Amino acid sequence: MTSKNKSALSEKDGVSQPETTSKSSAQKIKRNRRKQTSVEEFVTKILEGDITFLSRAITLIESTNLKHQEKANQILDACLPYANKSVRIGITGVPGVGKSTFIESFGKHLTALGKKVAVLAVDPSSSINKGSILGDKTRMEQLVTDENAFIRPSPSGTSLGGVAQKTRESIILCEAAGFDSIIIETVGVGQSETAVHSMVDFFLLLKLAGAGDELQGIKRGIIEMADAIVINKADGDNAKSAKMAKVEFNRALHLYPPKENGWQPKVMVASALHHQGIDAIYDMINDYITNAQQSNFFNKKRKHQNEYWLLETINQQLKNNFYNNPEVKNQLQIEIENLEKGTTTPFNAAKRLLKK
Amino acid sequence: MTSKNKSALSEKDGVSQPETTSKSSAQKIKRNRRKQTSVEEFVTKILEGDITFLSRAITLIESTNLKHQEKANQILDACLPYANKSVRIGITGVPGVGKSTFIESFGKHLTALGKKVAVLAVDPSSSINKGSILGDKTRMEQLVTDENAFIRPSPSGTSLGGVAQKTRESIILCEAAGFDSIIIETVGVGQSETAVHSMVDFFLLLKLAGAGDELQGIKRGIIEMADAIVINKADGDNAKSAKMAKVEFNRALHLYPPKENGWQPKVMVASALHHQGIDAIYDMINDYITNAQQSNFFNKKRKHQNEYWLLETINQQLKNNFYNNPEVKNQLQIEIENLEKGTTTPFNAAKRLLKK
Repeated sequence: MTSKNKSALSEKDGVSQPETTSKSSAQKIKRNRRKQTSVEEFVTKILEGDITFLSRAITLIESTNLKHQEKANQILDACLPYANKSVRIGITGVPGVGKSTFIESFGKHLTALGKKVAVLAVDPSSSINKGSILGDKTRMEQLVTDENAFIRPSPSGTSLGGVAQKTRESIILCEAAGFDSIIIETVGVGQSETAVHSMVDFFLLLKLAGAGDELQGIKRGIIEMADAIVINKADGDNAKSAKMAKVEFNRALHLYPPKENGWQPKVMVASALHHQGIDAIYDMINDYITNAQQSNFFNKKRKHQNEYWLLETINQQLKNNFYNNPEVKNQLQIEIENLEKGTTTPFNAAKRLLKK
Repeated sequence: MTSKNKSALSEKDGVSQPETTSKSSAQKIKRNRRKQTSVEEFVTKILEGDITFLSRAITLIESTNLKHQEKANQILDACLPYANKSVRIGITGVPGVGKSTFIESFGKHLTALGKKVAVLAVDPSSSINKGSILGDKTRMEQLVTDENAFIRPSPSGTSLGGVAQKTRESIILCEAAGFDSIIIETVGVGQSETAVHSMVDFFLLLKLAGAGDELQGIKRGIIEMADAIVINKADGDNAKSAKMAKVEFNRALHLYPPKENGWQPKVMVASALHHQGIDAIYDMINDYITNAQQSNFFNKKRKHQNEYWLLETINQQLKNNFYNNPEVKNQLQIEIENLEKGTTTPFNAAKRLLKK
């Protein structure tokens, strides 16, 4: 660089273009690209409890790419014989009830007992409002760094059926990877509680004292599904009102007949923040599971759940196939107009549409 | 008869066997048998308000014979332009609440105002327990002899969808026959209330004071559907507790947001047996209908109901077609066994079944 080039406008000399990659290197790269992880490799690693491969397999399940789905199905089929050996617990409650804190405290209690805990979520709304539950893993700081815990946010998707299917398939992989405690979190949006209730062995409803939404829970059928209600944040000034809420919820629960297996749903209080009441809740769930396993209700319930999802999937697909048919779409519009004009009945219109 | 035949054991002489019918007479009878009432004749008579032909046409609707159904459809299509000009009121309540007495008192009030009243019923349980509501017409002695009233028991049938379709089609014929007030009675069995709610302009829930089943109504979603709650049998010693129940139900109703048209459901008391409160209930319904017609909510709601029944019929039929396929039936059994053995997932089993 000469001195006359010291102007601010001067540019440094450019470096020469690097040599193009050698032919042999390019081929090497291509070979490596093509060499994807095989189904066998996935399955071996998952059965070894490798969380990285478990994560990648779940990503395949969640993919909309047909090739990925095909591969995911092969992995699932291979993992099936190793699945089903876990306790699946569903946890629901409105935002603000302290679900993350509860799951963290409960999860830590489980790992301290030597259990391996997977936390999954069903939240069909997350793709709409982008505020996925579990999306922000930092909310469970202690559990996320626990090597015996695996946390996976809710898969995105607009249909509850799709989200639920992905979660159910993820459960299988987690079980094959050796997780013996599966926690499924959901938030009270639409029918997501029914979906989660239909994939767990025990369904727990988190509540706050004095929230005054007891009737909402009855109205939406959630109290009917609960195997236990836990009144959270029962600490400090809240402790007394939590005890009163317990009495109220016990009264509400007695409106319902006992569950099929004779279980009378329990109401308990807890302070997840201070890890109070968590051990008693674990013992209660453990009692329930032990009894259910001894009476074979445990297997019976899982069998019914499998049949439910089989029929649910078929019914949903029958509808999708029908209404996504372009000819049906057109004709449906015409029939709806006919109905408005009063020139046909819904039943005759349906008959014509079904002939398509 | 001779005197020696006067014994109590004696018999009168028999008359000789009548001659066999002549050939020409036999042919005449056959001709008449073949000559069934034509569709045109049915329609003309129905539009004239002939109750006998209306009844016979409804019998065709309810028939499982395909030829009858075809004829019923032709009659329906011809009657459609004359339908829709009525107010449709749904009435529900548990057995013992006094539905028949209420409908009789309410119906007599309507006919006294110069209205023509048709009473139909939706009760899918009636074919099972043989105890059809409205089956015993004598329960409405005064209304049944009123020439401006037409009472038709619930059609038999095991599926709610089938029973509901028949009732909806019967509504069309009743309207074409000039009935301007259609009352649809149902009893709280399964989803029958939802079905009736989806075919009426106004939905009325009958209750008793002190029955303590307020929460049951919330639980089953019936209170949510009601446009009004009437506490019946509010007479004698019951009058005071009926007023208290009114306060309670008003509180329960305020748990729900107002209806789409801004309507705040009303709670009223009545003694159908003593014809007390019936006129006020009629005025309230009349106000509702007038407002709904002015705001066009009336037509909008009927339009939505038509679309609901269109989609409901299609979805039901898609399922029937699928599950009644013999190949599917066999394969479904096999897949359920696979699920039990744990060799497949519900989603893969569904995929295989749908390929059939």
